[in-house]
Amino acid sequence: MDYCFSDKISGLKPSAIREILKATSQPGVIPFAAGNPDPEAFPVSEIRRISEELLSDNPIAALQYSITEGYPALISRLKERMAAQKCFDSASDELIITSGAQQGVELSCKVLCNEGDSLICETPSFIGSLNAFRSYNVKLCGVSMEDDGINTAELEEKIRMGTNVRAIYVIPNFQNPSGLTMSLEKRREVYALACRYNLIIIEDNPYGDLRFDGEDIPAIKTLDTEGRVIYAGSFSKILAPGLRVGYVSAPREIVSKITVAKQVSDVHTNIWSQMICERFMAQKDMNEHLSGLRAIYKRKYELMRREAAAIGNVSLSKPQGGLFVWATLPEGCDMLSFCKRAVEEYKVAVVPGTAFMVSPEDVTNSFRMNYSTPTDDEIVRGCAALAELSRSMTY
Amino acid sequence: MDYCFSDKISGLKPSAIREILKATSQPGVIPFAAGNPDPEAFPVSEIRRISEELLSDNPIAALQYSITEGYPALISRLKERMAAQKCFDSASDELIITSGAQQGVELSCKVLCNEGDSLICETPSFIGSLNAFRSYNVKLCGVSMEDDGINTAELEEKIRMGTNVRAIYVIPNFQNPSGLTMSLEKRREVYALACRYNLIIIEDNPYGDLRFDGEDIPAIKTLDTEGRVIYAGSFSKILAPGLRVGYVSAPREIVSKITVAKQVSDVHTNIWSQMICERFMAQKDMNEHLSGLRAIYKRKYELMRREAAAIGNVSLSKPQGGLFVWATLPEGCDMLSFCKRAVEEYKVAVVPGTAFMVSPEDVTNSFRMNYSTPTDDEIVRGCAALAELSRSMTY
Repeated sequence: MDYCFSDKISGLKPSAIREILKATSQPGVIPFAAGNPDPEAFPVSEIRRISEELLSDNPIAALQYSITEGYPALISRLKERMAAQKCFDSASDELIITSGAQQGVELSCKVLCNEGDSLICETPSFIGSLNAFRSYNVKLCGVSMEDDGINTAELEEKIRMGTNVRAIYVIPNFQNPSGLTMSLEKRREVYALACRYNLIIIEDNPYGDLRFDGEDIPAIKTLDTEGRVIYAGSFSKILAPGLRVGYVSAPREIVSKITVAKQVSDVHTNIWSQMICERFMAQKDMNEHLSGLRAIYKRKYELMRREAAAIGNVSLSKPQGGLFVWATLPEGCDMLSFCKRAVEEYKVAVVPGTAFMVSPEDVTNSFRMNYSTPTDDEIVRGCAALAELSRSMTY
Repeated sequence: MDYCFSDKISGLKPSAIREILKATSQPGVIPFAAGNPDPEAFPVSEIRRISEELLSDNPIAALQYSITEGYPALISRLKERMAAQKCFDSASDELIITSGAQQGVELSCKVLCNEGDSLICETPSFIGSLNAFRSYNVKLCGVSMEDDGINTAELEEKIRMGTNVRAIYVIPNFQNPSGLTMSLEKRREVYALACRYNLIIIEDNPYGDLRFDGEDIPAIKTLDTEGRVIYAGSFSKILAPGLRVGYVSAPREIVSKITVAKQVSDVHTNIWSQMICERFMAQKDMNEHLSGLRAIYKRKYELMRREAAAIGNVSLSKPQGGLFVWATLPEGCDMLSFCKRAVEEYKVAVVPGTAFMVSPEDVTNSFRMNYSTPTDDEIVRGCAALAELSRSMTY
């Protein structure tokens, strides 16, 4: 038969990264395109020990149906941690466990936006979130980035121009893909604009704990006196992404709607993995654990930065944390051809910046490089190969 | 601030079962309202051993990001099992792992239906699916049930009357909540109607492996020569629901769309639990395992049936498998008051049938009883309490 799909899904293509990752999975290709945490960062022996404990002490609780809101002990610990960071206000907020921050962002869009409503995003931005919004037939308005984050003058203009603008989606820390961090001043401006135009802010913060340079900047959620911020966090980058455990801290009314939407989506998040996260938080000093992760990522970032200096004519963003560097080719250089030749001739996979742009018209000459997935040796060889490719390009 | 939610989510209420389950969780309340598998049915020691194996042999694979389609080894095993049951055609079908069958059903609706399209369901039907459809602003048309399944004359009438009818949703085996099974003749009729009116069938089969009486009836998917059937299966009732592992076997074009929808929903299903399912299938004789489960549920069903005979004026459906019995009070008896008094005065929680009806106008005098969650002792005491309640009612 001829299949007829919903309007909202018909236009949605598998993410361009996925297609590139297929090339990555070919033997011998150096994976600068992926976004996997470094396997060395996984506390394998602790997870193994905790899992054995759980499945011995209380196996039925780890295997039976559970409640949609999440594992109560994990919720309590996260509320405590978020409250200490001023990202949870017990008077007005609630916290729900989600199947990764991805689900938190996707369900936020589902509960807030009708088809045809507008949502404002940084451009470039995380393709997983952009596609989640597209999957609800929401109009995306991209706002360009400056070194200290979103261009706030352009943000206000886009808010004024947009029809039924409902929310602003931002990744303030070590943004994926640009690696940029939004300054405190801009966080205040974004929040003020949300108040002025009666908008919700979806603050996606999967990398915030992975700062390896500079000082922490308070989350936009900490500024939220009016109940406008939905904060999405995750264990993917600080424990293990295969667990698929994230969380949303947001005003109670919003979490209540996210809960009914989650109930029909997957009933609840895998309960074994929620219990793993809870016991890990209970038994380990999280700050010490995170210090260890920061040291790993700082070392790998600095290695990539040093080696990438040999790639002629490429300027790199200077992330202070997270997993990604944004590499920009000079004007006149064909970025797509560079990325294609990189994987086909030089066996180095990077992601063309176009994958992350909000509109096809958004021009970019950048590509994304990741330093958490490749080994040290792969970082050295991959940068050398890109340097060779760069020398062969005619600008 | 005053929150404004999307039209599709605004009207969605937390499931009525959830509210009743809150009463169930009060100490001393006998849980005939839940739908949990019997904890004795969980192969705890095998899951524990397999988990230890996985987290020793290949911990990174069990903890790292994985692909949206699912764990390839599990997909292969399920394809083989489904093909043996003629529920997977390698020439035209594909199979994707989902976070429970719930996600398979929800994403099927998302990829097939625009807001305002119609979807036809049995009434009563599983509230989790009904709410998933409602969460996409899809119009639900309920078709009443007979002892051998959906009323096919009424089904055709509803298809003709409906606007933009896209799909028929059915649970052919031991339906939740009615416990009824659709006859082979009716499965053929439903399939023929789908062909005649160019509709998709969403066949939800979470209980099919739990037949404890009578002969297996081929799935509607086995009749599918035209590529119209989406078949959703699950490990929740045959291994453990906390794992949140289900799957969809469907025409390749449909699975391809479900895959992009799943990617933006939760990236992939918890990979540790997918690996648990795969190794369990690899190491155990599944038919022997299922025989064990059937014996547990047969015994508990027969116990409930025997004890429930004492409840005057209540007629029970005769399920040949699954987890639920549908109990019907005589006309003139106030079912809602019966259920309310059951939990409040007699400390027995059952689910009023109204929770499962497609429209508020659908009249029912039935309630749902579950025999897998309570212990034997609770079944005996709960039925005795309901018998006492029944004696106290004035009809």
